[in-house]
Amino acid sequence: MTKTIDPYGSSLVEDYERIINDFGLETFRPGLFPEPNRLMRRGIVFAGRDLKRIADCIRNRKPYYVLSGIMPTAERIHFGTKSVVENIRYFQEHGARTYILVADLEAAAARGVPLEEARKRALNFHIPAYIALGLDPEKTIFYFQSENKQVMHMAYRFARKVTLNEFRAIYGAAEPERIISALTQIGDILYPQVEERMPGIIPVGVDQDPHIRLTRDVVQRMKKERFFLPSALYHKYMPSLDGSLKMSKSKPESCIELPEDPKSVCRKIKKAVTGGRPTLEEHRRLGAEVEKCMVFELLKQHLVEDDKELEKIYEEYKSGRMTSGEIKELACKYATEFMENLDRKISQARKLVPKLNFVSFS
Amino acid sequence: MTKTIDPYGSSLVEDYERIINDFGLETFRPGLFPEPNRLMRRGIVFAGRDLKRIADCIRNRKPYYVLSGIMPTAERIHFGTKSVVENIRYFQEHGARTYILVADLEAAAARGVPLEEARKRALNFHIPAYIALGLDPEKTIFYFQSENKQVMHMAYRFARKVTLNEFRAIYGAAEPERIISALTQIGDILYPQVEERMPGIIPVGVDQDPHIRLTRDVVQRMKKERFFLPSALYHKYMPSLDGSLKMSKSKPESCIELPEDPKSVCRKIKKAVTGGRPTLEEHRRLGAEVEKCMVFELLKQHLVEDDKELEKIYEEYKSGRMTSGEIKELACKYATEFMENLDRKISQARKLVPKLNFVSFS
Repeated sequence: MTKTIDPYGSSLVEDYERIINDFGLETFRPGLFPEPNRLMRRGIVFAGRDLKRIADCIRNRKPYYVLSGIMPTAERIHFGTKSVVENIRYFQEHGARTYILVADLEAAAARGVPLEEARKRALNFHIPAYIALGLDPEKTIFYFQSENKQVMHMAYRFARKVTLNEFRAIYGAAEPERIISALTQIGDILYPQVEERMPGIIPVGVDQDPHIRLTRDVVQRMKKERFFLPSALYHKYMPSLDGSLKMSKSKPESCIELPEDPKSVCRKIKKAVTGGRPTLEEHRRLGAEVEKCMVFELLKQHLVEDDKELEKIYEEYKSGRMTSGEIKELACKYATEFMENLDRKISQARKLVPKLNFVSFS
Repeated sequence: MTKTIDPYGSSLVEDYERIINDFGLETFRPGLFPEPNRLMRRGIVFAGRDLKRIADCIRNRKPYYVLSGIMPTAERIHFGTKSVVENIRYFQEHGARTYILVADLEAAAARGVPLEEARKRALNFHIPAYIALGLDPEKTIFYFQSENKQVMHMAYRFARKVTLNEFRAIYGAAEPERIISALTQIGDILYPQVEERMPGIIPVGVDQDPHIRLTRDVVQRMKKERFFLPSALYHKYMPSLDGSLKMSKSKPESCIELPEDPKSVCRKIKKAVTGGRPTLEEHRRLGAEVEKCMVFELLKQHLVEDDKELEKIYEEYKSGRMTSGEIKELACKYATEFMENLDRKISQARKLVPKLNFVSFS
């Protein structure tokens, strides 16, 4: 298997080329980082900002951080969160100080979720789920926005560094709750640098790029404060099972959540868009159009860990020896195993919550 | 002396009638509150919102609060601040729990003043000046916005209760620093009700009415939370010595600051607009146009405590027995005494700062 970008192709490649151009991102090269993880090797991580700075930190064992936020509104998470956690895990294993914040103030501002409710949800579900997906609980620093005065203070300080028109240009809308949330996110992204200036990387879905851009703009306007420009790493969306760019709860039959009952997952997989040909005869003769197959995409992005095994599936399906029915069955088997494991791991992780490293604020 | 509105008239009366109509305020009647203070008796307090609710609290000795904020940006204050403090003092003496907050977060958002700098200024100057002007240090609860998580949390919670268009309608502009500051002010105004819902009154210059209106709008949208609508008490501006509506630093020769060197104050008074006639003969014959005299206004609003004495000055000047030169001299004498006293009292009050009741936040 060659280590190139998106080695297995995907019909969505044009969308991502457009995103890279429109947002002015760097294309991700898997060779940049040592021991690239599965998402990096398979082209699911596809772009970034200021990645060389982070590669240098890894290579020279210099201090840097990785940070991500939990939005404790939903009762479930999705495959995008899994990608974020796996990328955090990668940097965590490569020397990064790791920060996970609970965006309870944003949940209050944007959705009216009471702080106590957000806290409960984060402790009962989101944090255990992050640990279940691979976050090292011992090496992670957690905090709640609502307790972090320094983050709130930064939101106030940065307010005059951004105009209303910029908010509108970046977010489309500029309602007060959006503005206060965005300012707070800047505070979060820079918080690990309050005590010590250092590079940091934020792994996100590419739809979160506006926050990164805004933070970088603000840092550049506060040159005197000498914050490092935050780096960012972008992964592709898990495409919807119907073949469109992104799984979305608005189309529940094409969207798998975490956790979800395996029977429901298998039912959805059975109706997914595949790379199958109109007839079995054609399928055997021409082979599958793997780049159109959302079931293969699911296996590639999330369900098959082993590269050799994935390569084998690719070859079998591409050659027509494996049918679309068979690849769906395979995906159902893997998904069932994954969901059962996830449930068990979340339960186990819940027990660790009282021992986690929450920043204590005086 | 009759207790009517603005018993000594003033050429600015039309401006205030317009303000009452435009803003939908209640006209203040001095008989509403027991033992009205000098500003109330003399028509300088001219309007309010929901005043009866506060009068009931005073009469029935029910819990209520008075609250005001210190903006620690300027190095001096002005006569408007003196009026605010005197009204706070009035309610403090009539059973109100008294809160004074230091708006350090707003100073950071709006002016880029570092929190530490704002803290220093407030402790060294603004708080001592408030005490010098009459605030009872033992009966006052102080806090810094930046330390008050509950105030910050309310700013986030209220963000979704106000639209951008409302901010624009209320403030003219809706830049991010303005929005986050206004949301924080709502938090401040309601903070004394967090533990116990009760009426409260905010004495302000009428230019601060937008904050009151916005807070009242937000409270009405959160009926479930059962906050009392904040009441407000409005005092007139100290008019500029050149006769326009409001003293302003942009016209330093017509503006007296607190504290200010008495010599400089007397120099400004000597150039003030008076009620004098073109010739001494006319002045003696027709008497002064007191309602046009900014020097009399200064005596009335701030420098002459005793009603009988003010009445005497009024009669003497009105009748033409007192010349404009003489009233200026009198004002210079009073102002000198006032400024010397103020300096001394600020120095004394500075020594009380370590003993003040600052809310301690865990």
